[in-house]
Amino acid sequence: MRRPRRKAEETKADILTAAEALLRKKGFAGFSIADLAAELQMSPANVFKHFQSKTVLADAICDRHTTRMIGRFDAKDDSVPAPARLGLVARRLMDAHLADIRDNPLFFEMLAMMASTDLPSGRHYRKLIEDLFESVVRHGFETGVYKSAPESTIGRSVAPCFAAVLHHVFLIHADEAELHARCDGLVELVNAALQSPLAK
Amino acid sequence: MRRPRRKAEETKADILTAAEALLRKKGFAGFSIADLAAELQMSPANVFKHFQSKTVLADAICDRHTTRMIGRFDAKDDSVPAPARLGLVARRLMDAHLADIRDNPLFFEMLAMMASTDLPSGRHYRKLIEDLFESVVRHGFETGVYKSAPESTIGRSVAPCFAAVLHHVFLIHADEAELHARCDGLVELVNAALQSPLAK
Repeated sequence: MRRPRRKAEETKADILTAAEALLRKKGFAGFSIADLAAELQMSPANVFKHFQSKTVLADAICDRHTTRMIGRFDAKDDSVPAPARLGLVARRLMDAHLADIRDNPLFFEMLAMMASTDLPSGRHYRKLIEDLFESVVRHGFETGVYKSAPESTIGRSVAPCFAAVLHHVFLIHADEAELHARCDGLVELVNAALQSPLAK
Repeated sequence: MRRPRRKAEETKADILTAAEALLRKKGFAGFSIADLAAELQMSPANVFKHFQSKTVLADAICDRHTTRMIGRFDAKDDSVPAPARLGLVARRLMDAHLADIRDNPLFFEMLAMMASTDLPSGRHYRKLIEDLFESVVRHGFETGVYKSAPESTIGRSVAPCFAAVLHHVFLIHADEAELHARCDGLVELVNAALQSPLAK
């Protein structure tokens, strides 16, 4: 029973890799499932067996891309105090998005399109970002630098605060120097809130 | 010399009002300048004399709408302490956007479309919102409730903090109860930051 299942997963991965390459070269609207199948020397029906639609395929590509990107943040580097770590995380996330825009506009266009829908990859991505900020707040709270617990109202509001430097609508036409200044300002504001003795 | 100029401004206002009515009924893509001219019993050339394109017309409609909306906030009610006022401003702004979405989706669609471009109405709107938050921060700073000045890094970061409850991309498909909770959380976080004795 195991063999065929493993093979199906390998085929799925092959399809994803070929689709991502096509997507980076031609954009989401620039290729069909038939083109992709031809590239892979398989029938379109076989592609559809693994991905029921082009949207499902795009969703899977986005999910793989963003999960890998967030995965690179998983440095459990507790040597950096939480306030500095908050700045590092926010800036690295923003820079990763800016690099996507710069290096591959067609691919980013699809990421942005998917993010504006209510597909699983978008929800998963938001969850990964929330978890990332939560882990910083938790570290700060545990080391006594932050007064707000991650599960407090203030703790839970940290991720939404950074929307203005992380969501694609704010990144696409923005001036990079201005974005960096905005990001630094948000980091300073959030750190002041989390460190405030008034915070519950 | 005065008469004709005043008349031109009246014609402009008439065109705007008729265009806004058409827009609310049919959406931006649902009418042409020719339809609008027919409605006003004037020639399309006369409409174009006042608005060089449909985009310029839409920009003017947006600007009038948002300026009026923000104008209603201009209650110089200094009796409410700044921290409570911050909550009122954020919630009222968010609710005004949600009312636009609910009451007139076609009109909101155009507002959202214009906001995602770099047209004067979008820039003006962002400036109005920034000024609104700045006036709250200034009031809090002057009354000694806030430790951060409006022109400090933290003071200038207040408006961007609320992007996640004010920008249309976060409002369109969101759950209203969740949005209200998120807004309350951001208000609490920003108030903690501004009141923090650590804040410069």
